[in-house]
Amino acid sequence: MSDSSPPGVLPADSVGVVEARRIAIEQPLKLDCGRTLPRFDLVVETYGRLNADASNAILVCHALSGDHHAAGVNSADDRKPGWWDNCIGPGKPIDTRRFFVVSLNNLGGCRGSTGPNTFNPETGRLWGPDFPLLTVRDWVRSQAMLADALGIRVWAAAIGGSLGGMQVMQWAIDLPDRIRHACVIAAAPKLSAQNIAFNEIARQAILSDPEFHGGRFYEHNVVPSRGLKLARMLGHITYLSDAAMRRRFGSELKLAAPSFNFDVEFEVESYLRHQGSAFVDRFDANTYLIMTKALDYFDPSRDYGDSLVTALRQARARFLVIAFSSDWRFSPARSREIVKSLVEADRDVSYALIESQLGHDDFLMPIPAYHDVLGRYLARVADEQVSA
Amino acid sequence: MSDSSPPGVLPADSVGVVEARRIAIEQPLKLDCGRTLPRFDLVVETYGRLNADASNAILVCHALSGDHHAAGVNSADDRKPGWWDNCIGPGKPIDTRRFFVVSLNNLGGCRGSTGPNTFNPETGRLWGPDFPLLTVRDWVRSQAMLADALGIRVWAAAIGGSLGGMQVMQWAIDLPDRIRHACVIAAAPKLSAQNIAFNEIARQAILSDPEFHGGRFYEHNVVPSRGLKLARMLGHITYLSDAAMRRRFGSELKLAAPSFNFDVEFEVESYLRHQGSAFVDRFDANTYLIMTKALDYFDPSRDYGDSLVTALRQARARFLVIAFSSDWRFSPARSREIVKSLVEADRDVSYALIESQLGHDDFLMPIPAYHDVLGRYLARVADEQVSA
Repeated sequence: MSDSSPPGVLPADSVGVVEARRIAIEQPLKLDCGRTLPRFDLVVETYGRLNADASNAILVCHALSGDHHAAGVNSADDRKPGWWDNCIGPGKPIDTRRFFVVSLNNLGGCRGSTGPNTFNPETGRLWGPDFPLLTVRDWVRSQAMLADALGIRVWAAAIGGSLGGMQVMQWAIDLPDRIRHACVIAAAPKLSAQNIAFNEIARQAILSDPEFHGGRFYEHNVVPSRGLKLARMLGHITYLSDAAMRRRFGSELKLAAPSFNFDVEFEVESYLRHQGSAFVDRFDANTYLIMTKALDYFDPSRDYGDSLVTALRQARARFLVIAFSSDWRFSPARSREIVKSLVEADRDVSYALIESQLGHDDFLMPIPAYHDVLGRYLARVADEQVSA
Repeated sequence: MSDSSPPGVLPADSVGVVEARRIAIEQPLKLDCGRTLPRFDLVVETYGRLNADASNAILVCHALSGDHHAAGVNSADDRKPGWWDNCIGPGKPIDTRRFFVVSLNNLGGCRGSTGPNTFNPETGRLWGPDFPLLTVRDWVRSQAMLADALGIRVWAAAIGGSLGGMQVMQWAIDLPDRIRHACVIAAAPKLSAQNIAFNEIARQAILSDPEFHGGRFYEHNVVPSRGLKLARMLGHITYLSDAAMRRRFGSELKLAAPSFNFDVEFEVESYLRHQGSAFVDRFDANTYLIMTKALDYFDPSRDYGDSLVTALRQARARFLVIAFSSDWRFSPARSREIVKSLVEADRDVSYALIESQLGHDDFLMPIPAYHDVLGRYLARVADEQVSA
């Protein structure tokens, strides 16, 4: 929904007012950690219509701090559309005239799906730190159970950026018969030591906050806001390129005179503090820990003798891999590692390097070349269904 | 002192056992913040001998967490030499057979010089947060008073890496008649928005630690260890290149199986936690705040219509600027900005880009090409004195 529309008038390419729904999965889910969830809920939004043979479904996997609300608005007056609204809608790259799009809040999330801020039926208390740490494989399993519940045997495509792209890779490896196309955007085959270092500092900020209370902060009616704020501020540095920060905040770096105190002096400081504080209001610290650990643990080659090539030989999907030139969190070199392994594994892969400005966050931006590549790729996916 | 020497036997190229001394400056120092210190102490170490006309003195300026103990050992059994021992000594690049080297703990530091962890004579209490925030200009003024106290009218050279290099630049601009050569290593003409963002998060980690107590933690017999630890961990990410972290910790990234808890799993985590904890034992949180603010405030162009060229036209020194290829904190591009401005200002400058592996920390490493450039440059400086 563009900001230029008057309130209450939705643009023609919006999916419109959407409502989330809760899908109850009344089956046990065995997790990589060895524990089993007897049942779980996933909150989803869907856009478009599932066709008769359920062959037009697209799974959208979210990144670290994302959720199910990817497109549309929650009410006609809602001015803030979903996090990927620029990409999902009628006539947009993920075209809801042709596809049935499923967007979920991952297991362990904090927006309604079973996670640390929901009740553990066995104890009657909020899960908190008792909620198991998860892997990307666990998510794929849970998403497969969601697909079953929705009557979707095979995804036309799974699509995700960053941690979302990692879920897509894992889908292609773990359930090769259930995914026809894998769109892996701004991702990496596994984290670098520097990536893990950033995550570790974010976790230490949360874990060492006295108001974290070992993860039971709910019961103390507090939140570990200092730690979670620091974690988010730190994340933001990795989402933006040095050049983007310079462009955005550079002119503010000319101080007429220092204030000689710790108040905000530079715009970048106020930006980070604002981003950090806003995040505390909407996100759960235990979920943040779960998400960063899932990132650190992601390594699809682990089960295949540390060979990504061998891992990817399991896949049957065709791949679209997209990287952004200004991304230093998961740089184009990391995407090329994926592409190279796919080629070695004799898989079908298209690769696009998008010239970009902002950094890792570019995967959320409506960059024309990016949307063009993704849109054309998915148009062919849609055509396949028609001709099949 | 190399680790291969038996205890008690100093290598021939060591400056040997050194003792710090406290220089009392019994004169007022007017600071950029508008306040005046009526007097102050600086703790220094010196290596080599001042010659008769005091023309062979080199000032070593330290970086964020450095101190006066740059070379030698504190006792014959001390296995841990000063922070730049590989560069300072007889026959080393900063050759103590030819130069008299002065290394100080900066004003505001925490290793004996007047700073937040020393007593404010006006109140009889530790300064803590009442200690003024400082600028690089303030340090240059204080170092000039130190030079006076030591009978040094003109430095043969001032040398520093990172924040130390910024002090050297400021010396050349503010007191052009008192410095013949300026060696600016791994520095930048001012901080980027990303640099400031990292500093801001480090500060917020300290300021938001409940045990910071508004900077009066001394009086509560605690230290803001969580915040200071996070700050240091974060700093470390910026001192190492992504590739260096990968080389050092990469092989550890292959987990046989996740532990599914928040214990250390990856070597990079234990490295960062150790670095953070060790720092808490040796460094003061208020000093850390002062140092990061001095970095943020550094902008020698501010007094010259935001023109670095105009600022550098004040300089009379000849410059050696050294950058490291793997440094992403203050990348070679930042050093080239300095060089370009020096050239435009018609100043004499030599520039060396050192191929390196580690990142910003390379300015502390005995990289042969680096020590060769610095050593040859300084040998010419020494020859000048002889022929003068």
